[in-house]
Amino acid sequence: MPLNPDFQNEKQVLDHGYVRLMGVMGDDSSPDSDARISTGVAARSEAQQTTLVRFLLRHKHTTPFEGSVMKFEVRAPIMVIREWFRHRTFSYNEESGRYKQLDPLYYTPEEDRISYQAKSNHQGSGEMHPEAAKFVQEWHEEQVAFEEGYNELIQTHNVARELARLNMPVSHYSTFVVTGNLLNWFRFLQLRMDETAQYEIRVYANAIFEIAKQYFPRSFEAFEDYWLEAVTLSRREKELLAKMLGQAISEECLGGAIPEPGPYFTKREAGEFRQKLLRMGLLKND
Amino acid sequence: MPLNPDFQNEKQVLDHGYVRLMGVMGDDSSPDSDARISTGVAARSEAQQTTLVRFLLRHKHTTPFEGSVMKFEVRAPIMVIREWFRHRTFSYNEESGRYKQLDPLYYTPEEDRISYQAKSNHQGSGEMHPEAAKFVQEWHEEQVAFEEGYNELIQTHNVARELARLNMPVSHYSTFVVTGNLLNWFRFLQLRMDETAQYEIRVYANAIFEIAKQYFPRSFEAFEDYWLEAVTLSRREKELLAKMLGQAISEECLGGAIPEPGPYFTKREAGEFRQKLLRMGLLKND
Amino acid sequence: MPLNPDFQNEKQVLDHGYVRLMGVMGDDSSPDSDARISTGVAARSEAQQTTLVRFLLRHKHTTPFEGSVMKFEVRAPIMVIREWFRHRTFSYNEESGRYKQLDPLYYTPEEDRISYQAKSNHQGSGEMHPEAAKFVQEWHEEQVAFEEGYNELIQTHNVARELARLNMPVSHYSTFVVTGNLLNWFRFLQLRMDETAQYEIRVYANAIFEIAKQYFPRSFEAFEDYWLEAVTLSRREKELLAKMLGQAISEECLGGAIPEPGPYFTKREAGEFRQKLLRMGLLKND
Amino acid sequence: MPLNPDFQNEKQVLDHGYVRLMGVMGDDSSPDSDARISTGVAARSEAQQTTLVRFLLRHKHTTPFEGSVMKFEVRAPIMVIREWFRHRTFSYNEESGRYKQLDPLYYTPEEDRISYQAKSNHQGSGEMHPEAAKFVQEWHEEQVAFEEGYNELIQTHNVARELARLNMPVSHYSTFVVTGNLLNWFRFLQLRMDETAQYEIRVYANAIFEIAKQYFPRSFEAFEDYWLEAVTLSRREKELLAKMLGQAISEECLGGAIPEPGPYFTKREAGEFRQKLLRMGLLKND
Repeated sequence: MPLNPDFQNEKQVLDHGYVRLMGVMGDDSSPDSDARISTGVAARSEAQQTTLVRFLLRHKHTTPFEGSVMKFEVRAPIMVIREWFRHRTFSYNEESGRYKQLDPLYYTPEEDRISYQAKSNHQGSGEMHPEAAKFVQEWHEEQVAFEEGYNELIQTHNVARELARLNMPVSHYSTFVVTGNLLNWFRFLQLRMDETAQYEIRVYANAIFEIAKQYFPRSFEAFEDYWLEAVTLSRREKELLAKMLGQAISEECLGGAIPEPGPYFTKREAGEFRQKLLRMGLLKND
Repeated sequence: MPLNPDFQNEKQVLDHGYVRLMGVMGDDSSPDSDARISTGVAARSEAQQTTLVRFLLRHKHTTPFEGSVMKFEVRAPIMVIREWFRHRTFSYNEESGRYKQLDPLYYTPEEDRISYQAKSNHQGSGEMHPEAAKFVQEWHEEQVAFEEGYNELIQTHNVARELARLNMPVSHYSTFVVTGNLLNWFRFLQLRMDETAQYEIRVYANAIFEIAKQYFPRSFEAFEDYWLEAVTLSRREKELLAKMLGQAISEECLGGAIPEPGPYFTKREAGEFRQKLLRMGLLKND
Repeated sequence: MPLNPDFQNEKQVLDHGYVRLMGVMGDDSSPDSDARISTGVAARSEAQQTTLVRFLLRHKHTTPFEGSVMKFEVRAPIMVIREWFRHRTFSYNEESGRYKQLDPLYYTPEEDRISYQAKSNHQGSGEMHPEAAKFVQEWHEEQVAFEEGYNELIQTHNVARELARLNMPVSHYSTFVVTGNLLNWFRFLQLRMDETAQYEIRVYANAIFEIAKQYFPRSFEAFEDYWLEAVTLSRREKELLAKMLGQAISEECLGGAIPEPGPYFTKREAGEFRQKLLRMGLLKND
Repeated sequence: MPLNPDFQNEKQVLDHGYVRLMGVMGDDSSPDSDARISTGVAARSEAQQTTLVRFLLRHKHTTPFEGSVMKFEVRAPIMVIREWFRHRTFSYNEESGRYKQLDPLYYTPEEDRISYQAKSNHQGSGEMHPEAAKFVQEWHEEQVAFEEGYNELIQTHNVARELARLNMPVSHYSTFVVTGNLLNWFRFLQLRMDETAQYEIRVYANAIFEIAKQYFPRSFEAFEDYWLEAVTLSRREKELLAKMLGQAISEECLGGAIPEPGPYFTKREAGEFRQKLLRMGLLKND
């Protein structure tokens, strides 16, 4: 499909970064029609498509999401790229410091991004560091100094580019093209939109998500409902919950809570919910 | 590591099938030690290893499970192999009907496996079909007839093997070698040990699981607790639960239910559980 | 891109099969523009694009071919699908005999396809078997018999579909959707267009190739010139050639043979050719 | 298999780097025995194993090399890791600057590594730059300065580690574990042992190769003969060669050049060579 000019196809990220949609294959009906290859059922109403797509994502039947593809051009600091490229199912092309002198762009964080090391996890504490302004200034100066040296090595001394970049900081921006199917993107977003992801990659994931859901609203809504916003309870957590609550829910109470069936909570889904409550020991079975 | 002769390294499956462990790389400490590359922490006690491995699987930090590998030889009906080979991260070598006349082995189900089509899903209803014995007998005869024809085409008429197999039934057994890391195996088992998987592949998955957990007991126990036996609630299901139960749990009640900290339910895990209850709207926040 | 209605987007294969293009991402300029991300060079003339694409494929710089995608719907015998699905970088959705009664379509080979087993390789000898007509007739009857039984088990006896297919022959047709980028397709075609591939999958590969090269003529032409039609000489074969021919080629002779530089044989390529001749010991180095 | 203590299992690379074998699955007989699953042939002599392994690699039948696995721990500069991690079929665990303060190790090149940018390719020209000593000294000072600042940010100011590393140069060393099967390693080595690979990753590839071939001598020897040392001629290059040489080789001359058959040049291989000469137009066909 050609890009839709009415959509936002590009978003600025951080101080010099961006994500820009370059190509799309498929549309919001594609996962439904790819799934129907398995079942041989004919094309159907919007509501039936929604029902199926939500069923598929709920049950992790992921192959029908592999037949729709999105390709982005991205500019991001090397530190972000280092995390991004750990996702090995994407296809990548990145600009190369062996082939060209890289553009003089560096990531300098906002002052309120600079905080103490958190005690409980591997991130910043979230509160601005009292000396943040000074650190940011020093970082900026380091970047300017590196740039001068890098430029001089290449322009004045004609040093081989592949070595002139030796001390290039990981705050330096680089540009790449990344292609993946919807499943690849779901997995990336699940990890990188999470609050435990480093802020600098999270803002890229959020930008991708905003652009992508314009083209595949049904799929990304289901992704939010069944993946992003889901909570998973371990065997032990189920037991603890049952210990605290017992069989607190009666069939009557459950019946009263269940909404009218519709694509967003089908009759089948109500049955699955009832089964889960039974497995969790929360439903009175008398 | 060489195989442990005290372990069960081979299991019979169905009427003529088997799974046989051929090789292992790593042991039950390997995921812990691979994970410690990231954190630079030194080698540790058994309890600390258990704590880390369980943390990793709970949070789907899966890369440390990619550095340990198991290789099996399997004999299974083609219908099972067709499902198995959809798992694309494994490495495979299968015997070839172009290279050899295949052995005369066919899968004939037990009679109590034959049932009516279920109405609610895509499996059998579970109850034995009244004419099961007759069907099984007819299937067996079809297989014998095919085998005679196949053998005659090759032995008597010297027809090219690649064509002589034209009508080979998918109940025919074939043999293959499959290699994968622990993450590959987890994903396979999660799907194929599930009750919605077809019975014929489920028994293979169960056999793999039994053999594997002897070599990696800590990892497979965590896999059971956090993946296999977990329950995932969607956004809507969380809301329905909150609607029915409200803030039914007090901090005091929670405190009373939480077990003593240990590798199987750490202090950190108790904090995560509390957070989940808050996000589910079940914990009184006063 | 939407499909081009002036192109042939579907081809019949074997007696009941087909390949049908369902979607394309990118066009014949995409590999060039993805590659230019690395080098930062601006968009260029058709001839320059051709030069770059040919350079990339010649040197196995394959990542710029991963950003263009083609998706096909295919109907093929199970025996072909079994070979096709060994290509693990594609995404697949196949119809399922658990979800539906499969259509009554079977592959019956043409008589002249039936030959003796070849002695030198794993294929047919190529010559028609004197009893071919009889075999084809018998195969057809087996297929009709299976179909009757299969239909009766499902329609009359309501046997679970997942078992009713137990003896389904691998000549039975099934349908699937397959999505892959150009590199995935190159690797598939390189293997399956080869004369050692089984005839039944080779005709599918040829059909894919014919459709694909309409959309990416430059890339597939380079694929033919540098991959399909290339010959690779081992270390020993180079030595044998040098032993037989010695330094048979003078610089003068080479200069006379080299064509005028152009996108189809650039100056750089002439230099590479000279280097190869030196490494092969065929060029007089005086 | 446990590591062989008589082998060299670790090699120093660059000024502070290393590669260290951590685990192996399979031995030099494994590719042969995995391949024999396809053909059903019984275990065989060493010479027959060599013959088969060489045949497989010559014809790019690569799946039997996927069932043998090697795992390494590696310390390398980030600039090398950035190239290494583009190989997406490996499994990786890398130390994380979010989890720990990274060790104070930086890559400072030898002076004779510093040269002018080459005109013909994207590397250094190979000749030492007259000011090399000065550049190396300056790089070293930049690294010392960065280290002081990084240490101070973390130790004195307790700045979040994930930000303190903002300007970390890509010359900084990091450590990772990498697991791959023989095919993954072949593809890596083919690309990274090549003379067009950047020197800094080439020395790592060479070190891996030296360690690996101790464990799989037969496979890596075949890899050298049929992959590394092979030369590939394009369609056009074949034509040019035929134009210059014509049918220069007689059957007699060929017969005289072919060595006695043996595992290193089998009768079958002689036939393949003859076919190649025919396809290249070099063999007199009268």
